[in-house]
Amino acid sequence: MSTENPIRNNVNFATPRSFGTTLKSHLKETFFPDDPFRQFRNDKSGGRVIKKAVQYFIPIFEWLPNYNLRLFRFDVLAGITITSLAIPQGISYAKLANLPPIIGLYSSFVPPLIYAVFGNSKHLAVGTVAACSLLIGNTIGEKVSYQDDPNLYLHLVFTATFFTGIFQTLLGLLRLGILVDFLSHSTITGFMGGTATLICLQQLKGIFGLKHFTTKTDAVSVLRAILQNRKEWKWQSTIVGIIFLVFLQFTRFLRRKRPNLFWVSAIGPMAVVVVGCLFAYFAHADKHGIQIVGHLNRGLNPLSIKQLNFDSQYIPVTLKAGLITALIALAEGIAIGRSFAIMTNEQVDGNKEIMAFGLMNIVGSFTSCYLTTGPFSKTAVNYNAGCKTAMSNVVMAIGMMLTLLFLAPLFSHTPLVALSAIIMSAMLGLINYGEIYHLFKVDKFDFVICISCFLGVAFISMNYGLMISIGLALARTLLYAARPATCRLGQIPNSYLYRDTEQYPGLTRVPGVLALQLGSPIYFANSNYIRERILRWIREEEDISNAKESVVEHILLDLSGVTSIDTTGIETLIEIRKMLEAKSIKIAIINPRLEVMEKMIRSHFVDKIGKESIFLSIEDAVEASLFSMSEQKQQQQQDDFV
Amino acid sequence: MSTENPIRNNVNFATPRSFGTTLKSHLKETFFPDDPFRQFRNDKSGGRVIKKAVQYFIPIFEWLPNYNLRLFRFDVLAGITITSLAIPQGISYAKLANLPPIIGLYSSFVPPLIYAVFGNSKHLAVGTVAACSLLIGNTIGEKVSYQDDPNLYLHLVFTATFFTGIFQTLLGLLRLGILVDFLSHSTITGFMGGTATLICLQQLKGIFGLKHFTTKTDAVSVLRAILQNRKEWKWQSTIVGIIFLVFLQFTRFLRRKRPNLFWVSAIGPMAVVVVGCLFAYFAHADKHGIQIVGHLNRGLNPLSIKQLNFDSQYIPVTLKAGLITALIALAEGIAIGRSFAIMTNEQVDGNKEIMAFGLMNIVGSFTSCYLTTGPFSKTAVNYNAGCKTAMSNVVMAIGMMLTLLFLAPLFSHTPLVALSAIIMSAMLGLINYGEIYHLFKVDKFDFVICISCFLGVAFISMNYGLMISIGLALARTLLYAARPATCRLGQIPNSYLYRDTEQYPGLTRVPGVLALQLGSPIYFANSNYIRERILRWIREEEDISNAKESVVEHILLDLSGVTSIDTTGIETLIEIRKMLEAKSIKIAIINPRLEVMEKMIRSHFVDKIGKESIFLSIEDAVEASLFSMSEQKQQQQQDDFV
Repeated sequence: MSTENPIRNNVNFATPRSFGTTLKSHLKETFFPDDPFRQFRNDKSGGRVIKKAVQYFIPIFEWLPNYNLRLFRFDVLAGITITSLAIPQGISYAKLANLPPIIGLYSSFVPPLIYAVFGNSKHLAVGTVAACSLLIGNTIGEKVSYQDDPNLYLHLVFTATFFTGIFQTLLGLLRLGILVDFLSHSTITGFMGGTATLICLQQLKGIFGLKHFTTKTDAVSVLRAILQNRKEWKWQSTIVGIIFLVFLQFTRFLRRKRPNLFWVSAIGPMAVVVVGCLFAYFAHADKHGIQIVGHLNRGLNPLSIKQLNFDSQYIPVTLKAGLITALIALAEGIAIGRSFAIMTNEQVDGNKEIMAFGLMNIVGSFTSCYLTTGPFSKTAVNYNAGCKTAMSNVVMAIGMMLTLLFLAPLFSHTPLVALSAIIMSAMLGLINYGEIYHLFKVDKFDFVICISCFLGVAFISMNYGLMISIGLALARTLLYAARPATCRLGQIPNSYLYRDTEQYPGLTRVPGVLALQLGSPIYFANSNYIRERILRWIREEEDISNAKESVVEHILLDLSGVTSIDTTGIETLIEIRKMLEAKSIKIAIINPRLEVMEKMIRSHFVDKIGKESIFLSIEDAVEASLFSMSEQKQQQQQDDFV
Repeated sequence: MSTENPIRNNVNFATPRSFGTTLKSHLKETFFPDDPFRQFRNDKSGGRVIKKAVQYFIPIFEWLPNYNLRLFRFDVLAGITITSLAIPQGISYAKLANLPPIIGLYSSFVPPLIYAVFGNSKHLAVGTVAACSLLIGNTIGEKVSYQDDPNLYLHLVFTATFFTGIFQTLLGLLRLGILVDFLSHSTITGFMGGTATLICLQQLKGIFGLKHFTTKTDAVSVLRAILQNRKEWKWQSTIVGIIFLVFLQFTRFLRRKRPNLFWVSAIGPMAVVVVGCLFAYFAHADKHGIQIVGHLNRGLNPLSIKQLNFDSQYIPVTLKAGLITALIALAEGIAIGRSFAIMTNEQVDGNKEIMAFGLMNIVGSFTSCYLTTGPFSKTAVNYNAGCKTAMSNVVMAIGMMLTLLFLAPLFSHTPLVALSAIIMSAMLGLINYGEIYHLFKVDKFDFVICISCFLGVAFISMNYGLMISIGLALARTLLYAARPATCRLGQIPNSYLYRDTEQYPGLTRVPGVLALQLGSPIYFANSNYIRERILRWIREEEDISNAKESVVEHILLDLSGVTSIDTTGIETLIEIRKMLEAKSIKIAIINPRLEVMEKMIRSHFVDKIGKESIFLSIEDAVEASLFSMSEQKQQQQQDDFV
């Protein structure tokens, strides 16, 4: 007897798309989700395509032709502001990486020029960053001591920077920006907080004016070193340090209260350096226990391309330093570029940006620079100072060039304690208590990911902290995928809508019919779970409705939300069907999506289960189930009658 | 002006569940999806609960009281059949692990007894397996040569088995059976095929009667060793081997054609051994270049608990061998237990089963046994021979005991070439060409996972092949999660249904409204993708409908399929809203599920977007959008009029 349904929307059982078509579509979604070449597609003229391609790959050709004096006025102002930040930060962060301070200044000259040509963010200001400086210093320091062989150490840092550049360029070319996505926001918040704590503690060395210190970076070792060397404490240094720190924190406070006074906090570090230099020069501070930076050469970046060291015994350590810092620098640079792009409603092509960072670091490693990226503080200042294009980076580079040519020696009097105060102040701003609390409130697992990175970085080591946190985040991803939530659906009274009965209490349930919504995707890692869960739903349903008549006769699996399925997943559906058949429960599949349907057809699942068991909506399936149950009952009554 | 919707189903904005409730529910879904303790929950009587608990943890108490002679008759028959398989397999696989053949017999005596007490599968037959035997031999062999120091080698194998047992028991106790789920079916198919190929090649040594051979296991080394030692080839051995192999393959062929003749293939190996022994004994085969097994002691398993070796220099290698084989053995044992449970419509508790395997291996390592699990071939024979309970394992153990006590010396005449033929024949059955072709047809990525394991195992090494394949499977999981498919929805004419416009061509689109269905989950690794993709959908929509009036004014995000979201995901939704606001596009959220809604409330997303922008169905949202657009038009007309 044929069971024709009363109403029925047609399910599309068209032949699956060819392998080539689906592969192309998958590759596009994976590597080109933002469709970067759309502008070339509708253009027939060859010349225009070439022009657009050049503009695409070298963005300066896009904005420079339309550049004008009005924009330049804004960019000059922003450029001068970030220069005043770049000088003290450059010197400080170079010290953090155990590099000669002049390297920090070099690193703010060449890379910004390269970025201005290839970068596509308008607000990003190029510079060195504290976390990566410390990390690169630590990693290279494991192999070569900066005190014993400063030249070799320096050359290895250049080499690591070169690897960073190569790695970043490759990532961009291969459209692997997706890797950066796996550094979650929680991990980065924790990493920043942990690193900031660590760096703050380390700077106590400068504040207390210590000469001996530990080379370890974990919080316990650093605190112990401070206590053990307490005989070296210089009160003069401490007082000066605290005054500077209070001043800097006040300027930051001012910025928060009055955003239009942002320039006060922007030039704060420069003011501290200048005051510090004057004080050290006139008070002969170095004779009163206050250490100064020491001699700084005049002149532009010397070439360092010949100093790159590819000696096989150092390759592992330079590669390691290069790769890890490359990813962290990218995470910071890309995240920040994106944030500002969202604020101004522009689009940033992550992979192009990664290539720009890569080129900037390759050229940097040839010209005595170390790792640079787009640091948050500098970019925020640049944005607030009203920059309009990447020209502000050019202005900064020119400012830095003039500094290197004429002013560098003046900074040799900078007291180390001033640098420590600058670093500490910057770092205190990076510990984002608010965000950590927000994570705690909204998502406990995100909080665990964040805090494990924070504590791991602060108490074990930067690499381990990061790895633990990334490991947790990936484990969570796998768990998400291994345990997709299913729910039982009920009908909202007087409507055609079926919703989760746990979320919407009081929904109507159709006797004998159990409708379940399955989570996505269905594949090897969760197929056992899904089978167990479905069986449990049936048991639970039967426990609730103990009356004999409302035993489950039809089970409807809503696949609307399932975006993909693999062969194991399909086999599991077949198995479930087999198991349910043995309990004489009929199974219906609701609304399989395109990819799922294609695999179901290709694996002959549709043939096995029958097209009549696949429905476009729950309502259709419920109607069909009711129809079939009433028919069965009629049949039974007839049989009884006979 | 308030915009009241004409019709509207109510969204549930109830306060989120407490952290404790959600955590409990997550833990339950993750570790107890099959709700194993349900039987204790509704029972008030203490005595019954204890009885049930004992029965739960020690299943023999559940089935033994109801055991009867009728069942026993079936089990005896099945038990004898698998004993006849266990003797030749035990000797052969022990040789594969470079162990004395008697160890293989020991391993079929104690572990089946333990399994009969704690195991909860009715059809599983305990025994050693080829892949794990080879793997354990390889791994231990890296550190200690079985030729140079056979005792140390043997003790390390026991230690590895001990670690396997401990690891398996812990996995079961901690309900980490989920780990086994990550060994996908494709990986296992590839691994089995690759290992089988490898082992077949290795057995050519026995077939050709070679004395010198390589210790490497990759296909290239093995083939080279065979060719290099071609002067040792013994034609007598080859002829005998080929005859045995042809006979065994014929019995297998018979089983496929006539399933009720399964016993022919089941006793085939035993027949080969017996014929081989007789032939060797009477023809003095050992003098004609056919090697034999050699002396076999009479007597039961000696204790080996004191021989476990925890010397720190061997711990890494025994741990490694123990952990890897533990997982592979579980994958095989659990998968097979499950398959047969599905065929007979029973439920197997994976974690309890894992504990049973663990206990069996711990006790095994104390009694001169090496790694055992539930091998596919033996279990299939057990099932076909009509076993009813785990009693068939007891019968096999008794059979093996008698063999060890009285018959063992007889098997000392077994020619090695007979063992090689037995192994080869078993292995040829494990290369599942049909399944590999099926994977190729249905899912290319599954095929790649499978074939990479196959080739990796055959040409590089078992560990590497496995790791490459698992790595690919995990990468795919991460990709699934990183690129959840979104689609544009259109209305099916004359219905309230909204479906994928790519899957169902010819759907109606509402001018000015773009409805998108988002994939699941939304979290850090895909939030950038989702943002880019939504922007691209808008661009594409605007490209298609170039007419000015049908520019997108409302965007509806259908979250029905989204089972979870993290803080980054919610922030992304907020960002998307901000970006769309700048383009004066209004955003509406459709049907967020329980967990998503809770996080939206907790993170104040609902407050930011407004409850009036969250709908229970697309239809509601479309109505509201149309209403708001028509109001806007009226307003505009009024303004124009004024």
